[in-house]
Amino acid sequence: MSATDRLLEANRAHAERFARGGLEARPSSGVAVVTCMDARVDPYRILGLELGDAHVIRNAGGVVTDEVIRSLTISQHKLGTTEVVLIGHTSCGLEGLDKDEFASTLDEETGQPRDWSIGAFEDVEESVSQGVERIKSNPFLTRAESVRGFVYDVNTGALREVE
Amino acid sequence: MSATDRLLEANRAHAERFARGGLEARPSSGVAVVTCMDARVDPYRILGLELGDAHVIRNAGGVVTDEVIRSLTISQHKLGTTEVVLIGHTSCGLEGLDKDEFASTLDEETGQPRDWSIGAFEDVEESVSQGVERIKSNPFLTRAESVRGFVYDVNTGALREVE
Repeated sequence: MSATDRLLEANRAHAERFARGGLEARPSSGVAVVTCMDARVDPYRILGLELGDAHVIRNAGGVVTDEVIRSLTISQHKLGTTEVVLIGHTSCGLEGLDKDEFASTLDEETGQPRDWSIGAFEDVEESVSQGVERIKSNPFLTRAESVRGFVYDVNTGALREVE
Repeated sequence: MSATDRLLEANRAHAERFARGGLEARPSSGVAVVTCMDARVDPYRILGLELGDAHVIRNAGGVVTDEVIRSLTISQHKLGTTEVVLIGHTSCGLEGLDKDEFASTLDEETGQPRDWSIGAFEDVEESVSQGVERIKSNPFLTRAESVRGFVYDVNTGALREVE
């Protein structure tokens, strides 16, 4: 039995007890969360979110890429969010990753051109700070009344704001 | 008090009772989940995931963009995942969105050029099916032993596999 099959079994149990149908697409808190794909980061638990509360956008590193700008634009213009919470975290695999070395490995292994950059960064606080600035200065994201950045500590469960 | 401030209060309570420090970055199930940012979709609940189990990648529509390929490449090459679960969902805001009209609205409102496309789609099953094919045929994602696509019903909590 594959891991995917086990997750599908869990979904059958979830569907049997599911009682949250009929929710609206519009996030009730007006918040969009942007964070890393990391397995130790669950934005629902970290922020006490309930189903229907917030958009959640995640990628490798929680880096504010064009794709994140696309998602936030739709979130603000089509679904009315007005606050952005950007969360990096401690011991992120993208922090300090040698992107030249990784790029060489990928090139050697696949022999294929890439349309995308690795997206590694030197320091998570700096990455979060740059991401906040990128969102604040983006012409498509002017509906945000609040854009704040944080580092989540995967060992303590606490958020620290990046000023 | 802003919604963000309320989430930070919830985080303080979370950190006080947090007892899952010391987890490894490598997802224990070997699964990477790709899904939509939609507020009604919580992959942890849907799939019975525990902290540390799986990578979670999310964007507007759960569309397999270059950014998703980037994140999955890092997930497979750096953190050892070997299964991909792609999840679209019913009543998605990107399904049937008139992208020309939305593009015009953005152009009029901002007067700015865009580096990214809207990423709308006609039919969620077709979008999931195309996403599965895009992942399966990508030269950077050959470490996946399983790539499966699903549509999540936001009203019943159930997943249906897209064959």
